[in-house]
Amino acid sequence: MVIQEKFFPLLAFAAAFVVGAVATEDTFGARDGLHFSLHARATNTDGSAVLYKDPTASIEDRVNDLLPRMTLAEKVSQLIQGDMNGWMNMGNPLDNTLTYNPSGLVNMMQTKGGSIWAGYQVPWQKFVYAVNVGQKYLMENTTLGIPALIQSEGLHGFTNNGTIFPSPIGLAASFDTDLISQIADIVGKESEGLGINHIFAPVLDLARELRWGRVEEGFGEDQYLSGELGNAFVTGLQGGKRRNAGPNAVARVAATCKHFAAFGSPQGGLNTAQVSGGERELRTSYLRPFSRACLNSLSFMTAYSSYDGIPAIANTHILTDILRNEWGYKYWVTTDAGSVDMLLGKHGTCETRECAAKTTIDNFSGEMGGGSYTFLTLQDQVKAGTVSMDSIDTTVKTLLRTKFALGLFENPYPYDDYLSTLRTPASRSIVHSADAETIVLLENKKNTLPLKTSIGSIALIGPQVNRVSFGDYVFFNATQNGITPLDGFKQHLASVSSSTKINYAEGSKLWSNDESQIAAAVDTAKNSDVAIVIVGTWSLDQTLLWSKGTNATTGEHVDMSDLVLVGAQLKLVKAIKATGKPTVVVFISGKPIAEPWIQDNADAIIQQFYPGELGGLALAEVVFGAVNPSGKLPVSFPRSVGTTPAFYNYLKGSRPIDAGRILADGTLQFGHAYVLDSPVPLWSFGQGLSYTTFT
Amino acid sequence: MVIQEKFFPLLAFAAAFVVGAVATEDTFGARDGLHFSLHARATNTDGSAVLYKDPTASIEDRVNDLLPRMTLAEKVSQLIQGDMNGWMNMGNPLDNTLTYNPSGLVNMMQTKGGSIWAGYQVPWQKFVYAVNVGQKYLMENTTLGIPALIQSEGLHGFTNNGTIFPSPIGLAASFDTDLISQIADIVGKESEGLGINHIFAPVLDLARELRWGRVEEGFGEDQYLSGELGNAFVTGLQGGKRRNAGPNAVARVAATCKHFAAFGSPQGGLNTAQVSGGERELRTSYLRPFSRACLNSLSFMTAYSSYDGIPAIANTHILTDILRNEWGYKYWVTTDAGSVDMLLGKHGTCETRECAAKTTIDNFSGEMGGGSYTFLTLQDQVKAGTVSMDSIDTTVKTLLRTKFALGLFENPYPYDDYLSTLRTPASRSIVHSADAETIVLLENKKNTLPLKTSIGSIALIGPQVNRVSFGDYVFFNATQNGITPLDGFKQHLASVSSSTKINYAEGSKLWSNDESQIAAAVDTAKNSDVAIVIVGTWSLDQTLLWSKGTNATTGEHVDMSDLVLVGAQLKLVKAIKATGKPTVVVFISGKPIAEPWIQDNADAIIQQFYPGELGGLALAEVVFGAVNPSGKLPVSFPRSVGTTPAFYNYLKGSRPIDAGRILADGTLQFGHAYVLDSPVPLWSFGQGLSYTTFT
Repeated sequence: MVIQEKFFPLLAFAAAFVVGAVATEDTFGARDGLHFSLHARATNTDGSAVLYKDPTASIEDRVNDLLPRMTLAEKVSQLIQGDMNGWMNMGNPLDNTLTYNPSGLVNMMQTKGGSIWAGYQVPWQKFVYAVNVGQKYLMENTTLGIPALIQSEGLHGFTNNGTIFPSPIGLAASFDTDLISQIADIVGKESEGLGINHIFAPVLDLARELRWGRVEEGFGEDQYLSGELGNAFVTGLQGGKRRNAGPNAVARVAATCKHFAAFGSPQGGLNTAQVSGGERELRTSYLRPFSRACLNSLSFMTAYSSYDGIPAIANTHILTDILRNEWGYKYWVTTDAGSVDMLLGKHGTCETRECAAKTTIDNFSGEMGGGSYTFLTLQDQVKAGTVSMDSIDTTVKTLLRTKFALGLFENPYPYDDYLSTLRTPASRSIVHSADAETIVLLENKKNTLPLKTSIGSIALIGPQVNRVSFGDYVFFNATQNGITPLDGFKQHLASVSSSTKINYAEGSKLWSNDESQIAAAVDTAKNSDVAIVIVGTWSLDQTLLWSKGTNATTGEHVDMSDLVLVGAQLKLVKAIKATGKPTVVVFISGKPIAEPWIQDNADAIIQQFYPGELGGLALAEVVFGAVNPSGKLPVSFPRSVGTTPAFYNYLKGSRPIDAGRILADGTLQFGHAYVLDSPVPLWSFGQGLSYTTFT
Repeated sequence: MVIQEKFFPLLAFAAAFVVGAVATEDTFGARDGLHFSLHARATNTDGSAVLYKDPTASIEDRVNDLLPRMTLAEKVSQLIQGDMNGWMNMGNPLDNTLTYNPSGLVNMMQTKGGSIWAGYQVPWQKFVYAVNVGQKYLMENTTLGIPALIQSEGLHGFTNNGTIFPSPIGLAASFDTDLISQIADIVGKESEGLGINHIFAPVLDLARELRWGRVEEGFGEDQYLSGELGNAFVTGLQGGKRRNAGPNAVARVAATCKHFAAFGSPQGGLNTAQVSGGERELRTSYLRPFSRACLNSLSFMTAYSSYDGIPAIANTHILTDILRNEWGYKYWVTTDAGSVDMLLGKHGTCETRECAAKTTIDNFSGEMGGGSYTFLTLQDQVKAGTVSMDSIDTTVKTLLRTKFALGLFENPYPYDDYLSTLRTPASRSIVHSADAETIVLLENKKNTLPLKTSIGSIALIGPQVNRVSFGDYVFFNATQNGITPLDGFKQHLASVSSSTKINYAEGSKLWSNDESQIAAAVDTAKNSDVAIVIVGTWSLDQTLLWSKGTNATTGEHVDMSDLVLVGAQLKLVKAIKATGKPTVVVFISGKPIAEPWIQDNADAIIQQFYPGELGGLALAEVVFGAVNPSGKLPVSFPRSVGTTPAFYNYLKGSRPIDAGRILADGTLQFGHAYVLDSPVPLWSFGQGLSYTTFT
């Protein structure tokens, strides 16, 4: 799978690693230790200052001044995503060797120097060294001194050891634009300090095909909510200016609205599969979040999928007619990893790399890595006349606009004091708020919740109790920064000086039908005053998710054919409920779980979408009433996979209901729509209780 | 549900029934017993013969001659479907009273006289009397003498006590265009003799959303196969000319290609729900069967659904740009029952009946009954200028073309010798062939089949053994003309003088989880040499299917959220297999059944789509090898509802496969697409074994 290469890049230059330049300072922050042989021109041949280097000039004037100075090779290099791994060995999370490969650096910047993939998990010191090496080379040792976009992920926290917030589907449950702006602001600050200026977020795909593994990455099923929250994210992430940026800079980090467009409803729920739809559905559903949130975003990313048979990256109607002409979007559009090559292998709309490159550039998009670098054909194609210089120029200009808008030409470097913006107490406080706000109280029969802290004992049961379940798009071992529900309950009860005893039993594994632990869990429940059973789905970090031999039930390329609890989890819940103890079921998941039995039988039900670092604590606070639950479902929970789609704003008249059902005793009550089930979801978009009583 | 009204029309005129004209002959065949007070004109005012009554004139000349003679009221009456129930009491299948209501007749013909719904089950003598009354009135007692279309259903046999053939999905399994032409020819002959000249068949909706109840009505998932078989059906049904028809008539009965267009992929599988799609999918999938099969069909019927948000009956792009202009289609297009009113209640694209009528007529379609007769507003609307006379005229002309093409002006009556074409031995022979050809051998491990007629005993087990399971669109109690598998096995074994003993056990009901009969069925299997377990889905005839309190799992408005066997059927199969006896599983169903366990464990598997009248016999012939199975699946069988859609010709690259699975011992083997299942169907389109050995 080519996508994997984004996360496990081939160490193409690793063999060439030799003793390179070595940092001369212990705390590498300045760039004085780096010496290159060339220097970028600051003046015209007549001695006058070059306009594009004037921070006070308008962005458009700077772009128009710079473009004619560029050679075709320089232009093409701008259009291809390079990789920090080309001059630094970024593969080892623990390695802090501050050396780089000079020939790899030169090679990279000459051919793929416009933007640099930097989504690596390494010590921060090494990371900023690597950024400095790259940007300094570009600024001081290339003819024109064009800094690179330095790119990473950041859907719910920056992947290089930054703060992890709840997954976007959880953030959406807050319905809180201010909160999301604050979170995106932190993601932006943490990125900015480290020299990252381009974040691949937010995801604005709608959660309408629930089998799809990436439901957790977006803001739910609703185009309006997704647009509002997306706008809050873009605004928060981009807000402010980089230090030393000129008066015309508009953002400090570029957001990337993705995946453009209609990526979230793949046929069969299979990741990257085709999406069926026409112009109405495109405009009334899929494009809405983008038109609301992204017109000021400094970049877009195209989707892997096709829409009505036209690959997203080849969709001139969407990319040119709508995005460029109708919306007037003038900034950078990048393809996703490996997606240009998919025109050959996957979509079959091209037979040659030349065709794939031409198709992409004629739609004014750049080429991300992860493929065969089809854009390396562009120089020959321009010379041969198969690709127009106009396509090249128009696309380069979009990238230059993004860079000028970021103020990168004035300061493309990490900040010396980057540590001051990483994992701060203020961020910790926002994580805490976010984790509290994203919890949804789905059911609360007979006011089972909140529990009193005077309760004698609680049983914490289930495979999610002693585990941190983050969503995808977090760095390797990020969960080590999170608190488990078990520890969260302990911490909360201690903080309120409660003597409530916690009895813990795993009950079952997430990934097994083995029922051998259930009996012990039943005993645990019997010995407690209330049972809290925590079950759900799970994802993995970006290293493990793509490793062979791991398992997960949600995340990118992890698509489920069913929405029930996997393995023995439902049996565990039923066994605990059968004890007669009040039973609170907590779903920790990245997508809706379809278990009507639990709706019918649990005394209370809490939905916690994959949380941030304080999720386990926030859960305890909600259970004990220290926090009044306020989350609302951003996505409807169907009764079964066979009753999907479940989204609330279906087209008028398109959901006839004449429900049948299977009673608990097995009796079949026949209906027609459906014969033995109902299209009405267990809980619809917007569902969410609180402890407040209204009179 | 307005659709119901088609089958249970309100007896609006029943109260007016009085002693009307009475047939003067015992065998009512001639029309001499009828006397009306007016006579249609045969000459112009100058005494010359009217051109439109000249059988030798071209159809277009006749249309152009007739249209200007028509009043607005006469035109509008042509455009609204009337109902035979308006002048005859057709509600009682056993009543043979040959009386009619004269005022009801006049009223009906004055306001809704263009086409007459006649899908009633009454004694044939009464039926032809009713047709004769209506047509004679129109021909002889109206100013212009325009005969009516007399309409009924005929997807797999004519609904008024005619021969029943296998459901279309079963016919499709034959992949045999000649067979389907022969069958349609019989449907046409049986209709023609009785005076029915317009049949609402074939269905060309693609079976791509398997939850949908109407999968059985079409020819499967593939646009090419559906087009070829649809063409065979149209050709067979329309073939020949009515007696006395002129030289320019082209058909004896009008086919109706439906449901135009894209009706078969409703969202959620819910009948009449919206269909998502764009222009590519429309043209490469949904329209293909129509463009192949229907350009010579004398009518179309529009769909209830919307495509990309545009109701089918309001879809000018499909109905005008494509059908009329691109394809040049010039014949009659009718809406489906009640669908014009759906523009108000269901789709919400109109707020008034006037709008609904205008929308429909501006798309050059007529109005079927089952609604509020919005077309009754057309006269006022023309006068008010909100509807153009051009829309009216253009649409009336399409209907007149269809009537002239049928030769109806020359002879609109039933034939006196209609009995000679009904349920003939030749038809019986074709039913036999069809039932044999539609059986698909899916699995045959260790050559379990065919059984030898020397075998000592067989167990016939299951709820489908002593039952005739016809599909929908058959008349009340049609199954009484069918043979059960139990009787079919008896008859076949007797015919080959076999002494094989048949042991029968029902094992379970189709519609219950009750397992109390399984033990006896297990004993039956143990006492036999082989067990044949016959399970599946079921539908009902058009009376029972729409009655309260009945149950079914397939058919119109009967949509399933799951594709597994309902009730205790799978447990029955497992119990029988556990006896150790060779176990043959037979699915009798209208759609794919998703039971991977049966694929893994049954010794042989036969798929019999809802059969025709000799289905039980043909099944025995296949099991014992008197017939070599030759059927092929026209629709793929998915592993589960959550792995749909399963159709084979998915868009290139859109079905990534990285399958996980749950092993028989409960072990979870994790994959990604899907996590615990596979998108690869159990059996794909085209699957079908035979007993032939190839070397």
